[in-house]
Amino acid sequence: MPVLLNAEQAVSLSELIDAINKTGLDCKLPEGIQQEPMPRIRGLGSLLSAGPEEISFLSNPKMQELLEQTSAAVVILTPQVYEELTAAPSFIPVLCSQPYLMYALLAQRFDQVRMSDLPQGIHPTAVIDPSAQLGAGVSVGPFCVVEAGVTLGRGTRLGAHCVIGAGSTLGQDCLLHARVTLYHQVHIGDRAILHSGVVLGADGFGFAPDPVKGQGAWAKIAQIGQVRIGDDVEIGANTTVDRGALDDTVLSNGVKLDNQIMIGHNVQVGEHTAMAACVGVAGSTQIGARCTIAGAAMLSGHLVLADDVHVSGGTAVTSNIGQPGRYTGVYPFAGHQDWQKNAAVLGQLSGLRRRLRSLERQQTNESSEHTNKQK
Amino acid sequence: MPVLLNAEQAVSLSELIDAINKTGLDCKLPEGIQQEPMPRIRGLGSLLSAGPEEISFLSNPKMQELLEQTSAAVVILTPQVYEELTAAPSFIPVLCSQPYLMYALLAQRFDQVRMSDLPQGIHPTAVIDPSAQLGAGVSVGPFCVVEAGVTLGRGTRLGAHCVIGAGSTLGQDCLLHARVTLYHQVHIGDRAILHSGVVLGADGFGFAPDPVKGQGAWAKIAQIGQVRIGDDVEIGANTTVDRGALDDTVLSNGVKLDNQIMIGHNVQVGEHTAMAACVGVAGSTQIGARCTIAGAAMLSGHLVLADDVHVSGGTAVTSNIGQPGRYTGVYPFAGHQDWQKNAAVLGQLSGLRRRLRSLERQQTNESSEHTNKQK
Amino acid sequence: MPVLLNAEQAVSLSELIDAINKTGLDCKLPEGIQQEPMPRIRGLGSLLSAGPEEISFLSNPKMQELLEQTSAAVVILTPQVYEELTAAPSFIPVLCSQPYLMYALLAQRFDQVRMSDLPQGIHPTAVIDPSAQLGAGVSVGPFCVVEAGVTLGRGTRLGAHCVIGAGSTLGQDCLLHARVTLYHQVHIGDRAILHSGVVLGADGFGFAPDPVKGQGAWAKIAQIGQVRIGDDVEIGANTTVDRGALDDTVLSNGVKLDNQIMIGHNVQVGEHTAMAACVGVAGSTQIGARCTIAGAAMLSGHLVLADDVHVSGGTAVTSNIGQPGRYTGVYPFAGHQDWQKNAAVLGQLSGLRRRLRSLERQQTNESSEHTNKQK
Repeated sequence: MPVLLNAEQAVSLSELIDAINKTGLDCKLPEGIQQEPMPRIRGLGSLLSAGPEEISFLSNPKMQELLEQTSAAVVILTPQVYEELTAAPSFIPVLCSQPYLMYALLAQRFDQVRMSDLPQGIHPTAVIDPSAQLGAGVSVGPFCVVEAGVTLGRGTRLGAHCVIGAGSTLGQDCLLHARVTLYHQVHIGDRAILHSGVVLGADGFGFAPDPVKGQGAWAKIAQIGQVRIGDDVEIGANTTVDRGALDDTVLSNGVKLDNQIMIGHNVQVGEHTAMAACVGVAGSTQIGARCTIAGAAMLSGHLVLADDVHVSGGTAVTSNIGQPGRYTGVYPFAGHQDWQKNAAVLGQLSGLRRRLRSLERQQTNESSEHTNKQK
Repeated sequence: MPVLLNAEQAVSLSELIDAINKTGLDCKLPEGIQQEPMPRIRGLGSLLSAGPEEISFLSNPKMQELLEQTSAAVVILTPQVYEELTAAPSFIPVLCSQPYLMYALLAQRFDQVRMSDLPQGIHPTAVIDPSAQLGAGVSVGPFCVVEAGVTLGRGTRLGAHCVIGAGSTLGQDCLLHARVTLYHQVHIGDRAILHSGVVLGADGFGFAPDPVKGQGAWAKIAQIGQVRIGDDVEIGANTTVDRGALDDTVLSNGVKLDNQIMIGHNVQVGEHTAMAACVGVAGSTQIGARCTIAGAAMLSGHLVLADDVHVSGGTAVTSNIGQPGRYTGVYPFAGHQDWQKNAAVLGQLSGLRRRLRSLERQQTNESSEHTNKQK
Repeated sequence: MPVLLNAEQAVSLSELIDAINKTGLDCKLPEGIQQEPMPRIRGLGSLLSAGPEEISFLSNPKMQELLEQTSAAVVILTPQVYEELTAAPSFIPVLCSQPYLMYALLAQRFDQVRMSDLPQGIHPTAVIDPSAQLGAGVSVGPFCVVEAGVTLGRGTRLGAHCVIGAGSTLGQDCLLHARVTLYHQVHIGDRAILHSGVVLGADGFGFAPDPVKGQGAWAKIAQIGQVRIGDDVEIGANTTVDRGALDDTVLSNGVKLDNQIMIGHNVQVGEHTAMAACVGVAGSTQIGARCTIAGAAMLSGHLVLADDVHVSGGTAVTSNIGQPGRYTGVYPFAGHQDWQKNAAVLGQLSGLRRRLRSLERQQTNESSEHTNKQK
């Protein structure tokens, strides 16, 4: 459950409403509803878990019946849902055209208290090369290593145990959680959020067959490209983005990567594209803008995917996708014996098609023979 | 190969037998067999690798012929297998109804010598917030970071480079190997074993479309829930368990997770459920007790799986499973050309079914016509 | 883009050619071509990105037309391609029978400048047990932990935050990037390259059902085997290789593993076998020499794969493979509705085959009846 703010940290509802309205998203109490004094809110919860000092929200109209069960002090809902209420609600309603977005912004607001408690400044155990340039308000956690020629933009924070390789640059207001590793020459824009275990700029997987050394032997292709990442990118725990072989690996502005994703060398990902956990993208593939790649999908190398492509979970994409739309390729699961019985036929499909054609031909011949006879 | 105990560390067989019997599992020498003095055992090995100062076991009756080849000093076997021996064995037999479980307990026993050599106490390089509460016998390795408000239960050991985020709690006798990262507010019961690279409590993957910021842009949904983990849980290397969005992500008592597993936010896993490596579980899915999820299986979000469900390796589970049993959905592999030939038909399956129906209808018509004619 | 060498670091072309020829790979200017003085080269790039002080290469003859567009000072190509040039090239041609291998060696050469800048010596923050043995020229980065009884061979370098567990051994000239974790008793040969986040020697996933403790409960099988890794092995970021249960997990000489691969306990991998990212190999499986396992393929446990087996991306290998060749098993993706329509038939395949047989039998009967009638 979310940690409740203590009584002193509690925020008044009017302050929350003002803060949301400042973001450009519009919310308000229903007309004619007065609430004096405005309640002070200590937390944010789901309709079923929020208590009488908390705010909640209804984003999915199908869940409307939960409104009768909630103990929340305040609930955000759309004007449409509010109109349909048949009885006076037990909560203070706040009307907003996009309750889910408003929930996102409120969650950020409630997390601020914790965030503002994060340690500030440069921890004395950190090892920082004298040539590194740190902007105003930069925080560096315990046991961090910041190598030669690194630039950390204003307000950027490194959690414990981060390693920033030589010549790498981070923009302003980035947040690196504990134990993020950047190799040398990794360049990141503003407001990045990088989670623990992230590795950016490791060598791409490149080897040339080396018959000089022996049958089957490989020569390493040193990976001398870089990694370039735009603004507002978030990267989940234990995700890896390899450096380019010669050219760079690129994540555009607004890209969101979940945990345990693997981005191969020279991949390019377009703006605002989001990938769920366990996705793998092989080398040199280009993904358009505003795509979504669902969990555990795998993209082969050297492909081009258009903008606005949506790949279903577990799908292996093995050829280019030129048109927007949703693409899927996953084996439907079933009870094991049913699966076994049916899967056994997969190895005969081509033969079955041939037999079907043969039957069809006979059928046609007989029909025509039959017709001829009837004449 | 297992490291052998040196001569001084060697354990007498009678001591081993006593130790096993104390756990409630029953083992003994066959009746009428005397062994004086009992041999001292320096290690545990498989039937083929164990030497003359080691103990081994036979758990799979199909491997019975290996008994004639083993050099082990002692072999654990079932009374049934012992009865079937046709000649006097070269080893001392120990009878046990569950040799595999006895092997597990013996392996723990032989690993104790190494475990008891692990460094004790608080390493002087560790950074521990004064507000953290450490129980008796707690060990903290080099370069660990223990943040404000953390509680570490009696006998809990942190390997090198562990980071324990603010307000997190660990129960008694937990073992964290080197480089485990807990974010803030992660709560773990007693006797947990967490392997290197584990990340608990990173942000779940939550974003709301934010048209205010621009087409395709996302607003982060701050993840303000927690992670709650029961007793006797083991989590493998580089596995990640995200914190809840609002409510918590929960692993129940006795859950066992292998390496590189991804547990999304708000997932709930029931008691004693075990997952093999590379499994992914998307957000809000609920898994029952005593399930097994084999390697690389993927579970979509918002699903409910009953107790005692067994998912085969590589299977994508995309809908609820209400009944116990085994479920599978994996494309059978074949030689590449065979696969290619047959897989090409997959995109025509619906058409093939239609053509088959059409043939069947014609067949029926002709048969009835035929019958009519014969009348 | 690759970082250019500065003017002082630039290498003359004749020096590059000499260096390549020393490796046993043969390269030279075309006969009759004189180039005095030889240009000095500051970098290596692709044909489209290399500038007038850089060297490039053409390995894929299909890309031949790019030769007319390149600004590179020097281009490596095969004698055959050179013969086919119809006009005098804008670049200095260097002839080599294997341009791709030569590119690999050149990339290593250009990366040397950076590599020679890496910090040397033992960082004062490193925690090194007095019983550890360090060869000449060993480097140990900040915050490394080297436990009791470790051996580090001559010239081996540990990046920041590496942890080398008790009794582990590394050969000569190994390169561990930042944050590599070895448990106890992990043994590695010469010239290994291990990337950030690698975990070697964590416990394999082994549990015995323990009805004594309760329904569904598991007893841990302590993993007392080791990890043994040969020479010239490279392991990618966040890859994990578990220690053996009793016997060892083994990677042979020349094995190359990409990122986020999982190698289960007791697995054995033959010489020069290469695996792309996100592959999982379950326990006790044996893979032959010179195999390639493409991305996201999954191998079940206790299998045996022959030498020279090539597994396609995303393929689940669930039984032994005794013959060399390429093997595949992946569901072809399609537009979501097409997939849905066709995938729905998968659960009926066995029934469709039966219906087809039934039609065939009727057809045969009727044909023979028909034939009989005609007689």
